[in-house]
Amino acid sequence: MSTTPGQTTQVRLAAYPDGEPQDSDFETVTVDLPELQDGQVLLRSIYLSLDPYMRGRMSQAKSYAAHLELGDVVLGGTVCEVVESRAENRKPGDIVLAFIGWQTHAVVDARQMKRLDPTAPPFDAAPISTALGVLGMPGFTAYAGLLEIGKPAEGETVVVAAAAGPVGSAVGQVARLKGARAVGIAGGEEKVRLLREHFGFDVALDHRSPTFVDDLKAATPDGVDVYFENVAGPVGEAVLRRMNTYGRVPVCGLVANYNRPAESSFGFPAFMGAVLAKSLTVRGFIQDEFVPTHTEAFTREMGQWVANGDVAYLEDVVDGLENAVDAFRGLLTGRNVGKLLVKVGDDPTR
Amino acid sequence: MSTTPGQTTQVRLAAYPDGEPQDSDFETVTVDLPELQDGQVLLRSIYLSLDPYMRGRMSQAKSYAAHLELGDVVLGGTVCEVVESRAENRKPGDIVLAFIGWQTHAVVDARQMKRLDPTAPPFDAAPISTALGVLGMPGFTAYAGLLEIGKPAEGETVVVAAAAGPVGSAVGQVARLKGARAVGIAGGEEKVRLLREHFGFDVALDHRSPTFVDDLKAATPDGVDVYFENVAGPVGEAVLRRMNTYGRVPVCGLVANYNRPAESSFGFPAFMGAVLAKSLTVRGFIQDEFVPTHTEAFTREMGQWVANGDVAYLEDVVDGLENAVDAFRGLLTGRNVGKLLVKVGDDPTR
Repeated sequence: MSTTPGQTTQVRLAAYPDGEPQDSDFETVTVDLPELQDGQVLLRSIYLSLDPYMRGRMSQAKSYAAHLELGDVVLGGTVCEVVESRAENRKPGDIVLAFIGWQTHAVVDARQMKRLDPTAPPFDAAPISTALGVLGMPGFTAYAGLLEIGKPAEGETVVVAAAAGPVGSAVGQVARLKGARAVGIAGGEEKVRLLREHFGFDVALDHRSPTFVDDLKAATPDGVDVYFENVAGPVGEAVLRRMNTYGRVPVCGLVANYNRPAESSFGFPAFMGAVLAKSLTVRGFIQDEFVPTHTEAFTREMGQWVANGDVAYLEDVVDGLENAVDAFRGLLTGRNVGKLLVKVGDDPTR
Repeated sequence: MSTTPGQTTQVRLAAYPDGEPQDSDFETVTVDLPELQDGQVLLRSIYLSLDPYMRGRMSQAKSYAAHLELGDVVLGGTVCEVVESRAENRKPGDIVLAFIGWQTHAVVDARQMKRLDPTAPPFDAAPISTALGVLGMPGFTAYAGLLEIGKPAEGETVVVAAAAGPVGSAVGQVARLKGARAVGIAGGEEKVRLLREHFGFDVALDHRSPTFVDDLKAATPDGVDVYFENVAGPVGEAVLRRMNTYGRVPVCGLVANYNRPAESSFGFPAFMGAVLAKSLTVRGFIQDEFVPTHTEAFTREMGQWVANGDVAYLEDVVDGLENAVDAFRGLLTGRNVGKLLVKVGDDPTR
């Protein structure tokens, strides 16, 4: 997708999707950019992050954040290059983390971005795209939610699903680095192999297997101490049934319910009965909550782990903004393998 | 019920109740007591505590504690007098807190009881029966669960149901002493009046009112920050729908579900959606968990509050062990007003 200088190509929400997002729920338009004002910069998008939370913003249902209005550019985190600057602290060629969404260019206040230095830790040891993955919001979500709510103790069993994704894979690896046993769940042989060989989970399970429930039981002979909930649906419920007394359930996402609420095998009263009988802690969270308290430790600790290879990551890069809608659909059904990114423009650091 | 010296009259579980406990689910027998051994004492029961948790023990369903076997004496906390002693640290006339259950007498190891001194704080300012209520397990449950999990901040709104009972009334009063606003829910005009006049709730609501849901909304214009869950059912669900972001839900009991799981208006996926969207903390607990950490503060703080009148209590005393079954049935349907006790024998301190 090439765009004339002074313009931006945007993907906008045209209709609220009913179930799985359709092409017709989006429209792509090219519009003129405003002139730069003092304090502003012109950004060119390099990488756009696609994340499950975006589906929630495409709904008028009450959520933890304001939903998109029809006609809005679809939101999203991006790694961009500064093209022009009328801000003192930004110069052309700077690489920044910004939140310009599904578009090629944007004029943004210079305070609404964070510089990424490809010559200094942690980005001297990891590509700038990881600022949207293991060293960005998904990695931070895993780190803060697991450590602050999950509190895995040495020898405890931590279970996570969507374990080949950027959050799940970080949860499993951080759990192991803290001395816990990590059980990862994913869909399909390829992902299960990745969990074992690339991410080092102690046990990897395929939720598509007809013996999944029995496999889970065999994989958690001492029960489950921490279930990092990011999928919901029958997989989540199978794990919740295996919680130990004083178990912790950080609730980070419910992807299986994002298109449509899944059928549930739990009645709500039965679930609360388990919460009481087992003294469970069930705690929803949005990563923003922990930004003030956990950013410094995350940046230091995760940066070191990625640099020295203790934490592996995997990226699934789709080329071109015109493929974002289809890639996003795949994200919601688990088609991607690893952190899903759209390469919107050239990466000058590679 | 008079019992020959050397004997005890016991209420035993004869059948696992199906729904509401029936008279035929229990049998009353009088049996010989064993001879006292060194280190043992003979106890005479004065007060027996009736508590909702007992219903759970009368079921073979998995619970947080072992269920009763058929033929077992029904369990329960008691305030007793020492009749005979072969233990150095106990003498006849001592008043003790013990756990001899639904019976008139028992021979017990002297280590399985705690002396209550009616001449020293807190029992110089409150009757010994309160060792089973506001100064005992129900008060402790309220205190520890509210402060450790609920963490009410000044100006926040705390809601509790079964608010005329020993746990609920303590929750509301402790919440107010910590600067929060207390909304109490109970069934019927008499209890609602008690909440206002005796226990000092800021607002008291009748869940039997046809306008209950609207009343609750009007009573919590700023939403609910802490819901101390001890009833479940439609009342609990109405409150859960009004939780604020970062709300806390100590889950202490689910009385509405003890006879039969109540119909639920929540689907489990919808509930987890709310947990995520509002970053809620839902935490089951059994008071035992907090005994090592909170007993000292409870004894000191609650003892002072009761002594100086900051915390009021109310007892509903039923006379005679032969009336325990019927009283217990009433407890499960909310017939009692205040802490339900069975007076099994004479109280020498009154």
